[in-house]
Amino acid sequence: MAEMIETASGWLAPDELESMRARMPILYVDAVPVRVDDTGTVTRIGLLLRIGPRGKVSRALVSGRVLHRERVRDALLRHLEKDLGPVALPRVPASPQPFTIAEYFPEPGVTPYHDSRQHAVSLAYVVPVAGDCRPRQDALDLVWFTPDEAASPVVQQEMNGGQGNLLKQALAYVGRLP
Amino acid sequence: MAEMIETASGWLAPDELESMRARMPILYVDAVPVRVDDTGTVTRIGLLLRIGPRGKVSRALVSGRVLHRERVRDALLRHLEKDLGPVALPRVPASPQPFTIAEYFPEPGVTPYHDSRQHAVSLAYVVPVAGDCRPRQDALDLVWFTPDEAASPVVQQEMNGGQGNLLKQALAYVGRLP
Amino acid sequence: MAEMIETASGWLAPDELESMRARMPILYVDAVPVRVDDTGTVTRIGLLLRIGPRGKVSRALVSGRVLHRERVRDALLRHLEKDLGPVALPRVPASPQPFTIAEYFPEPGVTPYHDSRQHAVSLAYVVPVAGDCRPRQDALDLVWFTPDEAASPVVQQEMNGGQGNLLKQALAYVGRLP
Amino acid sequence: MAEMIETASGWLAPDELESMRARMPILYVDAVPVRVDDTGTVTRIGLLLRIGPRGKVSRALVSGRVLHRERVRDALLRHLEKDLGPVALPRVPASPQPFTIAEYFPEPGVTPYHDSRQHAVSLAYVVPVAGDCRPRQDALDLVWFTPDEAASPVVQQEMNGGQGNLLKQALAYVGRLP
Repeated sequence: MAEMIETASGWLAPDELESMRARMPILYVDAVPVRVDDTGTVTRIGLLLRIGPRGKVSRALVSGRVLHRERVRDALLRHLEKDLGPVALPRVPASPQPFTIAEYFPEPGVTPYHDSRQHAVSLAYVVPVAGDCRPRQDALDLVWFTPDEAASPVVQQEMNGGQGNLLKQALAYVGRLP
Repeated sequence: MAEMIETASGWLAPDELESMRARMPILYVDAVPVRVDDTGTVTRIGLLLRIGPRGKVSRALVSGRVLHRERVRDALLRHLEKDLGPVALPRVPASPQPFTIAEYFPEPGVTPYHDSRQHAVSLAYVVPVAGDCRPRQDALDLVWFTPDEAASPVVQQEMNGGQGNLLKQALAYVGRLP
Repeated sequence: MAEMIETASGWLAPDELESMRARMPILYVDAVPVRVDDTGTVTRIGLLLRIGPRGKVSRALVSGRVLHRERVRDALLRHLEKDLGPVALPRVPASPQPFTIAEYFPEPGVTPYHDSRQHAVSLAYVVPVAGDCRPRQDALDLVWFTPDEAASPVVQQEMNGGQGNLLKQALAYVGRLP
Repeated sequence: MAEMIETASGWLAPDELESMRARMPILYVDAVPVRVDDTGTVTRIGLLLRIGPRGKVSRALVSGRVLHRERVRDALLRHLEKDLGPVALPRVPASPQPFTIAEYFPEPGVTPYHDSRQHAVSLAYVVPVAGDCRPRQDALDLVWFTPDEAASPVVQQEMNGGQGNLLKQALAYVGRLP
């Protein structure tokens, strides 16, 4: 029996999602979890650790689809809770303006972002998290990096689809790009 | 015979578009065409004049869908050319960061934006246009308003779906909200 | 004996400050204190209540100078603590990018902002505050308004020097301009 | 006889400027001149070439003070014309919001920006220029770099006071950081 995918207004069969992915850009959100000090300065960036099909380690931002009839803010919170657990206390920004958009194309090279499954356009936000993070689902761990570490080649090459570039844009936005 | 809708990567039958509209947020762009002086200060805002089904006058921003495998920049240019003609000389901003996003919900009241046909999420940009504007398609005319006029109740109530609010946000962003 | 004005790197005599005000733009910060809900949506805006020389009521944003060798973040925190007390728990944004700048000119009409004492350029930020606010110094009270109230003519006309306009720009930036 | 420094509202003696630099943050603007294609994508970044006191080559952004009673837009235009000549046709952005602020401190290490002469706070803008650039004053030349070249170590180490970092932030803001 086909696995069904939950949406805010009902259920979407996997083949329906596949069909849409071939026809339209899919709306996503990307969140860069950060720790800030008392002055708001970013001190750490949180990256999810994932183990790929052949045991390859990869690091990822919090990312996922916006559902039908779901506000972008609620999509951000849902994905943050899914990936960081229920007591991470994320502080979604007051302004809906993303710091940038990431256009993931199914073929590489059109933009810095690539997703072989689909054309996705992601609204990207920096989200301070104040609580305890307990990764769930398919993430093994959440590791906090300094801005210097996050921008380093060793971390950058563990990120896929251009997310390393998106992370550097986030660091630039908060004034912490080395 | 069914009218077909062109996409960057092929054709989409109207019933397919209808089906997707019921399942996912649809990605849009909204452009606020402006005239600027030599210092970059916004002096005029361009609004499309449309006549509705019962002869009702309405004013609108340049707005439309982003197609599959189309960059947001290219979607902006395509809709600006469609609505303002081929010699409008729009200057799409260097940064892909929208000044805000407008979340059009199928039911009113969830956000300031409403579209009974669909859940659309629109990336909004202010676009200086330097050339001659010759409205095409279903727009009768393009009228240039001062910031004061554009924010006035008489113009605001001729705009639909919350676009009057989006226009005021654009005026605030460029420092010209009265 | 002349009252001395504290700076981060020493003391500035009032006549020295007067002299500089006549020669250079003075750097300021403006903070719009807000309450946000769990999704980051702004629910209330905090305005300081002041009684002027002839008993006239006025409402004001948190505002003040940036001192020599003081970071903008630290200036924001210092003025927020001065005006809202020590347990307001302000969350200064992670990004140093102001949502706008307000250029206060000594003569009215050049920009929407006016300060008869000086030419001041202010970096404006929206700052969520999570704690208890206990106004100090010359502020009588801090009153929390809904976005609709804050943008209403009655509140707008109690604000001076164009700060009502700056407040509306802040509301637009967080997507809450009525 | 003392060289006098022109201000919008009169003249400032060098010792007066020195005195103020020791007492207050000085307001600056930084402009990153860029070439854009028809879609607004940044294709080149213009850097001024300067020869220092000991023949050392350095690259610089367009940068300078905001004068008393001068609008930030007018300061941007004045410095762009001073450094790029009268037919560069700069397009100052419609929004007064800088993409970031750069806080130059007299001692290194407080922020990424350093200016031994003073504490300067600079509002930074990306400015497309469409015309011919003919450097004047103390700049020998203006050289156009691709985004990759501009972010490369060889160019970065020819920039002083943290301007290389500011340039990378500008590239991130326009989505062209390599």
